[in-house]
Amino acid sequence: MVAQIKHSISVHTQTQPTTERRPLRLLVPAHQSYTFDSLPLQRGGEFGPVTQAYETWGTLNAAGDNAILITHALTGNTHAHDAAYPDDTKVAWWNPLIGPGKTIDTSRYFVICANILSGCYGSTGPSSLDLRTGKPYGMRFPVVTIRDIVRAQHRLIAHLGVRQLALVIGGSIGGQQALEWAVTYPELVRKVAVIAATASLTAQAVAFSEVQRQAIMADPHWQGGDYEPENGPEAGLSIARMLAMITYQSEESMEMRFARNAARSQDIPAPSGSPTPGERFDVESYLYYQGSSLVRRFDANSYLYISRAMDLYDVSEGYPSLEAALRRLRSKALFVGIRSDFLFPAARVRQLADQVRTLGGDAAYVELDSPHGHDAFLKEWEQMTAALNKL
Amino acid sequence: MVAQIKHSISVHTQTQPTTERRPLRLLVPAHQSYTFDSLPLQRGGEFGPVTQAYETWGTLNAAGDNAILITHALTGNTHAHDAAYPDDTKVAWWNPLIGPGKTIDTSRYFVICANILSGCYGSTGPSSLDLRTGKPYGMRFPVVTIRDIVRAQHRLIAHLGVRQLALVIGGSIGGQQALEWAVTYPELVRKVAVIAATASLTAQAVAFSEVQRQAIMADPHWQGGDYEPENGPEAGLSIARMLAMITYQSEESMEMRFARNAARSQDIPAPSGSPTPGERFDVESYLYYQGSSLVRRFDANSYLYISRAMDLYDVSEGYPSLEAALRRLRSKALFVGIRSDFLFPAARVRQLADQVRTLGGDAAYVELDSPHGHDAFLKEWEQMTAALNKL
Repeated sequence: MVAQIKHSISVHTQTQPTTERRPLRLLVPAHQSYTFDSLPLQRGGEFGPVTQAYETWGTLNAAGDNAILITHALTGNTHAHDAAYPDDTKVAWWNPLIGPGKTIDTSRYFVICANILSGCYGSTGPSSLDLRTGKPYGMRFPVVTIRDIVRAQHRLIAHLGVRQLALVIGGSIGGQQALEWAVTYPELVRKVAVIAATASLTAQAVAFSEVQRQAIMADPHWQGGDYEPENGPEAGLSIARMLAMITYQSEESMEMRFARNAARSQDIPAPSGSPTPGERFDVESYLYYQGSSLVRRFDANSYLYISRAMDLYDVSEGYPSLEAALRRLRSKALFVGIRSDFLFPAARVRQLADQVRTLGGDAAYVELDSPHGHDAFLKEWEQMTAALNKL
Repeated sequence: MVAQIKHSISVHTQTQPTTERRPLRLLVPAHQSYTFDSLPLQRGGEFGPVTQAYETWGTLNAAGDNAILITHALTGNTHAHDAAYPDDTKVAWWNPLIGPGKTIDTSRYFVICANILSGCYGSTGPSSLDLRTGKPYGMRFPVVTIRDIVRAQHRLIAHLGVRQLALVIGGSIGGQQALEWAVTYPELVRKVAVIAATASLTAQAVAFSEVQRQAIMADPHWQGGDYEPENGPEAGLSIARMLAMITYQSEESMEMRFARNAARSQDIPAPSGSPTPGERFDVESYLYYQGSSLVRRFDANSYLYISRAMDLYDVSEGYPSLEAALRRLRSKALFVGIRSDFLFPAARVRQLADQVRTLGGDAAYVELDSPHGHDAFLKEWEQMTAALNKL
């Protein structure tokens, strides 16, 4: 209880200036935040102040070693769990895995989820005000990498009094962060779960990312990144999300769900305002809906920066070789691939696990037998639970 | 020789008004053309006049039964072969397969390739002038289907004096046309080669198409389809092409070609004019280049209409069942799948061949063992030749 009180105080004590956010329509989950002066960046230079928005569940023990860090994906936020709605995945994105007595047991662990640097859910990002100019950073925000994101999280957990992480766990870009944690801070990470993530992206995945970013930046409302929050590149971001949603699924799952069914509704507007001539397919209405949903909840510049961090990620950067980077791991590691994932192919996740094991690391590989593609780590709760129980 | 003379006369005798084309920057290959009054459309109504641009090689025999029809893919044109540059695939897209003594032997066959209805290489399409208004059709062009495209080709080959087609052959949308030919005109098609095409598209493929079209239509230069030829939706079309190029390749081939290599050139502008922050990857420069190349040679509205025809294609449309449609085939059929094709998956091409065979048809299946994805039918000359020799 001492530790709990300590933290309930410390998280409200901000000794650094907070980077104010301009008003966004998006609903930012209630969160706490910690602001610090400056962060050295992997691409050079210092950046600050940096605010880290976060939520916690459970209680840190006196030793400070029962903490679990959950790292979120591209458009995720701090709200991985909601104690009031423990089974609702729309309210909180990893709810079925987190809670008292669940896989990530909040009655035993102090569970932390922080919004990533460059995000738009409370942490400093391109939509934050640059205190030097009084305007949002926009594209003057620096290029940040997964390593920068992880270093910012490191500052946060030190501030929270965490001495060692019992587990770092995340999927997709969250999985890149988990891997980066285990390589950058091997002595701090007892266990790591790298889910649907690899040592670096394929050329195909980078290509899909860049098409999305070009769609955003080609939207004249983008204005070189200096758009008004209420008048941003909605069509561009919506088109980007349409494409992303395809890459998060699979041919198999889209066939099961949509096949060539006719649209049930003609009411959902296309991003361009112009539907394609000819009969509308159900999959098209679905994609329009997904596009317009993201526009209401996400900042376009954050999308550019975070997806770029994903592309740039290469765990070996700064080390003599990939082997040299992976040899640093001290954590008990679980790598989870997804059979139908084409963004982070299962074969590459398995290969990464094999490499770690070959180098003497303690690494297990589990493959989710799911048709749901990359998104399976947000859907296959039973298989995810079974996989995590192996760690 | 009689037949040859007959056709060299007939192709220049146009009894119907030609639909004039507005000036486009794109280079339209030298071609002949045939214009007819009107075509009934699958979605209802009549449309005309219709000009069919085409090229031919070789000589039609007196019986009119040694003709081969080559059907082209989305951005293809009439110039499948160039006798002056017989080995250059940049000059003519199927050159290695066509010519005297080659697989498609122009010394024995009368080979025809027509630009498809709704195209922009000489045939009537959305950039053609609507004679009623004196303006280009734009989006007032009717929705055309693969069946309409094939019916227009049928009018052309009848005009050319062809009584029976020794072979109809094409890949991708060209493969859809070949299949449609064999089902719609079974008595006219002795052999058919359906390459990298299926009975209908997957939901995933439709989804990729729609993202491309939205990118075009969201470009303010699109102007509801009424753009000036010199001031069209270049960024949108370029982004569409970037995405399409990913779907024509494979993870494997992009990895072989680009991996995570740095861009060799920073000079190729991104469609939006704004490159993504951070180091540029080679695959990004490549995609920018591909995008800007298509803009110089293709009409955006044609892209919308042809890709929509691809999505809408379902060989069973108008028949009680898929089986009923496939049972109509009388041709000796070859179906060619590509191992790494994710737009028209090999398993689905094989399934189609199996269905035809189960229904009593004469159908063989060959799979190209290629890493090059959908585009393998434009690259794997030896395997293509070997496959076609089985027909």
